[in-house]
Amino acid sequence: MIPRYARPEMTAIWSPETKFRIWFEIEAHACDAMAELGVIPKENAEAVWKAKDVEFDVARIDEIEAVTKHDVIAFLTHLGEIIGQDEARFVHQGMTSSDVLDTTFNVQLTRAADILIADMEALLAALKARAMEHKMTVRIGRSHGIHAEPVTMGLTFARFYAEMDRNLQRLRTARNEIATGAISGAVGTFANIDPRVEEHVCEKLGLAPEPISTQVIPRDRHAAFFAALGVVASSIENIATEIRHMQRTEVLEAEEFFSKGQKGSSAMPHKRNPVLTENLTGLARLVRSAVVPALENVALWHERDISHSSVERGIGPDATIHLDFALARLTGVIEKLVVYPDNMIANMNKFRGLVHSQRVLLALTQKGVSREDSYKFVQRNAMKVWEEGKDFMEELKADPEVRAALSEAEIEEKFDLAYHTKHVDTIFARVFGAS
Amino acid sequence: MIPRYARPEMTAIWSPETKFRIWFEIEAHACDAMAELGVIPKENAEAVWKAKDVEFDVARIDEIEAVTKHDVIAFLTHLGEIIGQDEARFVHQGMTSSDVLDTTFNVQLTRAADILIADMEALLAALKARAMEHKMTVRIGRSHGIHAEPVTMGLTFARFYAEMDRNLQRLRTARNEIATGAISGAVGTFANIDPRVEEHVCEKLGLAPEPISTQVIPRDRHAAFFAALGVVASSIENIATEIRHMQRTEVLEAEEFFSKGQKGSSAMPHKRNPVLTENLTGLARLVRSAVVPALENVALWHERDISHSSVERGIGPDATIHLDFALARLTGVIEKLVVYPDNMIANMNKFRGLVHSQRVLLALTQKGVSREDSYKFVQRNAMKVWEEGKDFMEELKADPEVRAALSEAEIEEKFDLAYHTKHVDTIFARVFGAS
Amino acid sequence: MIPRYARPEMTAIWSPETKFRIWFEIEAHACDAMAELGVIPKENAEAVWKAKDVEFDVARIDEIEAVTKHDVIAFLTHLGEIIGQDEARFVHQGMTSSDVLDTTFNVQLTRAADILIADMEALLAALKARAMEHKMTVRIGRSHGIHAEPVTMGLTFARFYAEMDRNLQRLRTARNEIATGAISGAVGTFANIDPRVEEHVCEKLGLAPEPISTQVIPRDRHAAFFAALGVVASSIENIATEIRHMQRTEVLEAEEFFSKGQKGSSAMPHKRNPVLTENLTGLARLVRSAVVPALENVALWHERDISHSSVERGIGPDATIHLDFALARLTGVIEKLVVYPDNMIANMNKFRGLVHSQRVLLALTQKGVSREDSYKFVQRNAMKVWEEGKDFMEELKADPEVRAALSEAEIEEKFDLAYHTKHVDTIFARVFGAS
Amino acid sequence: MIPRYARPEMTAIWSPETKFRIWFEIEAHACDAMAELGVIPKENAEAVWKAKDVEFDVARIDEIEAVTKHDVIAFLTHLGEIIGQDEARFVHQGMTSSDVLDTTFNVQLTRAADILIADMEALLAALKARAMEHKMTVRIGRSHGIHAEPVTMGLTFARFYAEMDRNLQRLRTARNEIATGAISGAVGTFANIDPRVEEHVCEKLGLAPEPISTQVIPRDRHAAFFAALGVVASSIENIATEIRHMQRTEVLEAEEFFSKGQKGSSAMPHKRNPVLTENLTGLARLVRSAVVPALENVALWHERDISHSSVERGIGPDATIHLDFALARLTGVIEKLVVYPDNMIANMNKFRGLVHSQRVLLALTQKGVSREDSYKFVQRNAMKVWEEGKDFMEELKADPEVRAALSEAEIEEKFDLAYHTKHVDTIFARVFGAS
Repeated sequence: MIPRYARPEMTAIWSPETKFRIWFEIEAHACDAMAELGVIPKENAEAVWKAKDVEFDVARIDEIEAVTKHDVIAFLTHLGEIIGQDEARFVHQGMTSSDVLDTTFNVQLTRAADILIADMEALLAALKARAMEHKMTVRIGRSHGIHAEPVTMGLTFARFYAEMDRNLQRLRTARNEIATGAISGAVGTFANIDPRVEEHVCEKLGLAPEPISTQVIPRDRHAAFFAALGVVASSIENIATEIRHMQRTEVLEAEEFFSKGQKGSSAMPHKRNPVLTENLTGLARLVRSAVVPALENVALWHERDISHSSVERGIGPDATIHLDFALARLTGVIEKLVVYPDNMIANMNKFRGLVHSQRVLLALTQKGVSREDSYKFVQRNAMKVWEEGKDFMEELKADPEVRAALSEAEIEEKFDLAYHTKHVDTIFARVFGAS
Repeated sequence: MIPRYARPEMTAIWSPETKFRIWFEIEAHACDAMAELGVIPKENAEAVWKAKDVEFDVARIDEIEAVTKHDVIAFLTHLGEIIGQDEARFVHQGMTSSDVLDTTFNVQLTRAADILIADMEALLAALKARAMEHKMTVRIGRSHGIHAEPVTMGLTFARFYAEMDRNLQRLRTARNEIATGAISGAVGTFANIDPRVEEHVCEKLGLAPEPISTQVIPRDRHAAFFAALGVVASSIENIATEIRHMQRTEVLEAEEFFSKGQKGSSAMPHKRNPVLTENLTGLARLVRSAVVPALENVALWHERDISHSSVERGIGPDATIHLDFALARLTGVIEKLVVYPDNMIANMNKFRGLVHSQRVLLALTQKGVSREDSYKFVQRNAMKVWEEGKDFMEELKADPEVRAALSEAEIEEKFDLAYHTKHVDTIFARVFGAS
Repeated sequence: MIPRYARPEMTAIWSPETKFRIWFEIEAHACDAMAELGVIPKENAEAVWKAKDVEFDVARIDEIEAVTKHDVIAFLTHLGEIIGQDEARFVHQGMTSSDVLDTTFNVQLTRAADILIADMEALLAALKARAMEHKMTVRIGRSHGIHAEPVTMGLTFARFYAEMDRNLQRLRTARNEIATGAISGAVGTFANIDPRVEEHVCEKLGLAPEPISTQVIPRDRHAAFFAALGVVASSIENIATEIRHMQRTEVLEAEEFFSKGQKGSSAMPHKRNPVLTENLTGLARLVRSAVVPALENVALWHERDISHSSVERGIGPDATIHLDFALARLTGVIEKLVVYPDNMIANMNKFRGLVHSQRVLLALTQKGVSREDSYKFVQRNAMKVWEEGKDFMEELKADPEVRAALSEAEIEEKFDLAYHTKHVDTIFARVFGAS
Repeated sequence: MIPRYARPEMTAIWSPETKFRIWFEIEAHACDAMAELGVIPKENAEAVWKAKDVEFDVARIDEIEAVTKHDVIAFLTHLGEIIGQDEARFVHQGMTSSDVLDTTFNVQLTRAADILIADMEALLAALKARAMEHKMTVRIGRSHGIHAEPVTMGLTFARFYAEMDRNLQRLRTARNEIATGAISGAVGTFANIDPRVEEHVCEKLGLAPEPISTQVIPRDRHAAFFAALGVVASSIENIATEIRHMQRTEVLEAEEFFSKGQKGSSAMPHKRNPVLTENLTGLARLVRSAVVPALENVALWHERDISHSSVERGIGPDATIHLDFALARLTGVIEKLVVYPDNMIANMNKFRGLVHSQRVLLALTQKGVSREDSYKFVQRNAMKVWEEGKDFMEELKADPEVRAALSEAEIEEKFDLAYHTKHVDTIFARVFGAS
């Protein structure tokens, strides 16, 4: 995990303090359930809650672990120090360490998903606001990096909105994938613990009981979770790439916000670098790098091997923390993006109307001119624009054979941008719903 | 695509014949909608359907493409040869090649998903049948490859069932992700075509209209699709790995079915190799290899670049064909898997009862023996089993300090396998529903 | 393997005919060695060579395999049909199928590497020629897509040359990694075959004997091989990306060659798409997708499992065939790339000299003006250029405080492009050697 | 980076202190070179070295960076605080931040590679020692997890040695790939700095000058570096997998060393889990996860974009630190691995001699018995072993038709293990050199 790409709320999920707090809750709720079932005395279950508001001493737990070589035992020992070793003697009864560790990991991932979902909602709000703002801001659409036909900046924001809205759904699905817990014992048979304990603990933690676990919760869930994060990351790269293109010197249709105070801007006023979106491009690669190891983690041996553990110590915090940071950074970029509608028009007009050649061609054929002739007429005028820098509309108007088919007004109509934006409302209604 | 890992139905989806058939349907339905809207003459729309039952001549289309260097134009030319060039002159009007290509690709992926879903249902049926059959077939559960506590073979099948049932849901989600079409023109603005054409074509093809497209359907959908396939593949590897372990010489708790006629089996009767599940392990790697390029395909430049195309020409057929083959092969393996319950018992008894040491330990403490003493008593008897090959139960019965706390019957009860299987019904009900 | 991205020479390496030819050579050379060692009769070894110029009947071998379910046995049976079953009876003696299969795979990969090395040499020649041609063609260097300081087009070609020259070395290393053979029997112990047979066969096939094999040649070699291909592919993407940027409408510093006959160019003369380099970007992703499965193939169980096999049936041909195609395509793109030096100058001058602001700043401080003042002087003139479209040099000359430190000639000297190209010779000498 | 999988020496390479120390050295050596060239005053160059033994105040630098938003400027400001702002005024002249950052990153990677190389040498020593120790310790070789023919434990160690020896070579190559530096200015043209400065700095830091850089050192080098690490990681997984298999309950041919004090071992003496090698399996996945993003980093835009930076902040430390830890852990595992030769023999004899059936078959045919009859004779006796638990050798001796071809002594000879180990010396000489 790279601290400079981390935000405190998400980072806190992965702190030792949070982890021990969840461990405590699992153990305490399990004791409650066992007491309710008559397996352990009620007073012992109640005693555990004495630690409810105590901050666990991470250093002390580490100290004990250095001796016991076992993290859960170290925690339980420390818990005993707080609530009394005798009162603590039924804690964890019939459970296996993985019951605690796996359920905790899923609590952490679920909470992480909740933050990512909120991040995504904020990003969607930003994208929607900018889409509405620039709904009819015309710019040239580009295929292969080459001018094609006009679109609007609002459509660009709207398609990113639609993509991220799908990602919101993917995150919600991923959250549900991972929101399970297991308290099923050494090999998942509940031999030493009643399934109702699992049900109670899961309910209290906002999880569903894992229908069938072994020693561990099955890792296809985690694979699906990290794969979803990888798709979100790729969409971040998609938006970042668009902005990087828009900001390049020759295009300059938009810029990341550049505060007055930022060094170096005035002597080289053109030197405003899209460093945030470049950074997002890199972060996307980092988040995506969790996908393959998560897939490789699925095939554990028999009822469990521990190969997944070191992988998850890495990708669990890293992927969620960096994705949270990236979503928030992207939201800021979108909110503050400086859009240059004049440059958009200037870029579109770079070829003095050639962008409309297709419409003219179509109009000629519709007037009965043969395909071959239509093409020839358009071509010879297009070439004058291309090679001699003439204006396309003027040339067409001056071409007798074109004029034999099309009036001045008809020619002018082919250069009307409204032709291209007439369905923007329809598309917006599809994306944002009827207004 | 590797022919030996391909089945005809899935392969057919990716044939040129199928592709051209879908192209035709898109164009014909689009003509219908345009005629309905009064954009083109009804008779021209009707004329297109003359090719409804004609088999397109792939070689002829290739021949034309060699001249035009454009696949869609080549197809349209060939279509004109069939229905008459004049009748065909409105076909494809206002559309762009990507409208056809992208919608077709999604039709293919949707059909592929349908097959994969059916494959998965067959696999689930096989897993369920074997789970029921071996619900109470006891075998040793293993963590880290080391004997832990008893489970049943039915639980093993049941957890694979639960995992694959989640994968079924993932495949259904993936199918929906990809079941969209777009007929929106050069940059997605519907400048030259009415959105109602898209709606009609999509409805006819069983797709939803893509709410907002550019020149192409957004590739986050495809990334999510292939990521889902990657998760399924990893689960296949998971099951394959379990079987490979079960079949290894020293374990031999199950074997892939080996027909009498298969060469080489009788002189070395032990030499029955789990080649099908090894093959599935490799196929899982192959299918997974589609995930990263699919993620890399998301960030296209502006309204499209064509970098995704070559990738999808590879991973589209390869991932679906090999996954279809793998699912079918796995289903066969499961259906015919030869299970050896006697070997399971023999393996479990390898350590003459030591597997029950935890229960004895717990029983002693519950009888009031201190943790330290309980551990000492169990340990000294366990060591006799381990080092001298004694029988654990016999040793315990002969140990006066153990017997001071536990009667013979109580000791024997700790060796009762039913203790471990008592919740199998509960778990089965969770996985398969109440019976 | 996608046929449209395949060239015949590389594809031929992976044909059944080639495979069987290599199998034959291995068997025949092995017989020679065994005869020489007195293990089998010389006449039987000689008899094998009767098939030297015979084309093996692939359909017939498939037919036999359909019965025997074993490819090597099917081939040996067919070989017996050609040279006589009795003469053939010592063929393959003491060998295991993997001896033939693995050695053959490495022969194929080695030959593939030889083609890739030749491809790379052709690419290097093209890059060098264009570097020399445009050694002093000045264009603006860009960081973050934003104008920075001048470079030359020759430097761009030269850095791609240097990168691909490193890739040539990597390919050579990869070739050596994979140029080994093994004829060591069922578990690699040479129990049934003399190590000198392996030595003889390898020598004849241009391979080194694998120092220690199991049933298979160790797969770290293959992992390193495909990883090298992945690096080469990424460098192809690097060059492709540069060209795609250069060709975008607003930049237009270069274009992929567009033959007169190519459809659609004249009515929309600006619509020349960099489809070849976009395609190369996609092919790079495809080739790279072989890397992870190749890495996953390394950890085989004990003396071998067959999980690697299906993976290699895919990535072996696919990665080499597509990389060969990509290298050749890229070479063509480079050779024919249309470079627009005038546009390069026009782009550079977009900001009327602002690109030289850094040099002016430095010159002022070197004349004793404080950093703060220098910055202020440059800034106020830069702003006039940026906001009012003035010419930077003119403004500087008209600024009394600037002129107090710098003469007109000194100001002009700061705008001299030769300042930026003075070390091009040095760099070229480093890259291409002293001329 | 996961602290529990980190060792101090490697971690120190990635500390801020080390980074600033390298920055200082680059700047100081650059000043020396510039002074030597007469570009800056000698006394200023000398003054820089006043900071030679000063520990930089990381907190102070962070404090300055919080204001300047630029890490290199913050460092230079702090350096000025130490040596005097006036003396410091020529530091960094003509250089760009990337000159410092990229050269530093390569110094770090080079030092990391040196540690990895030393790690690998230690691992090789351990593997060689164990190979020599168990050169003739016979165990059964397994293909597909199924008993095949005998090998020796020494051969197993020897093949891991050979594989890791190749990895040592790969690490050395990777080190050379990355041991370059660049001091070439904003776009790599040396416009503002003499190439001899780069040469001097690189020489002092043990690097080669990058022949041609842009603003950055080309990232194909880094891709190749991390790809090499990925191959090493896969080989670690390979060895780890073998040990995990050997330790599984039913095999138990070896165990990770388990110290007397380790908890939980005595009550369940069989429950010794191969947690170190399982952990290594996971770490291999983690290290490998750096490969794909490193490949994706190669295609930077024009003379640089900064997308690679966030990726490298992650994978630079993570991959090297975890690989260092993994190599050291594996070395410990190998050195202390507890090998059980008796269990190896017991496992091999599981099928009472059936492992020799191939040799008997061959012997019969060599005595003139037809293939069909030979097979029939072997088969019927094999079946008695398989189904009735008889001893293979005894059955063969009692079979008249077998005895008609083979004497008792000849039969016994076929069961001689020395037959399988006769070439171990040859193989060892190939791997370790003549002794």
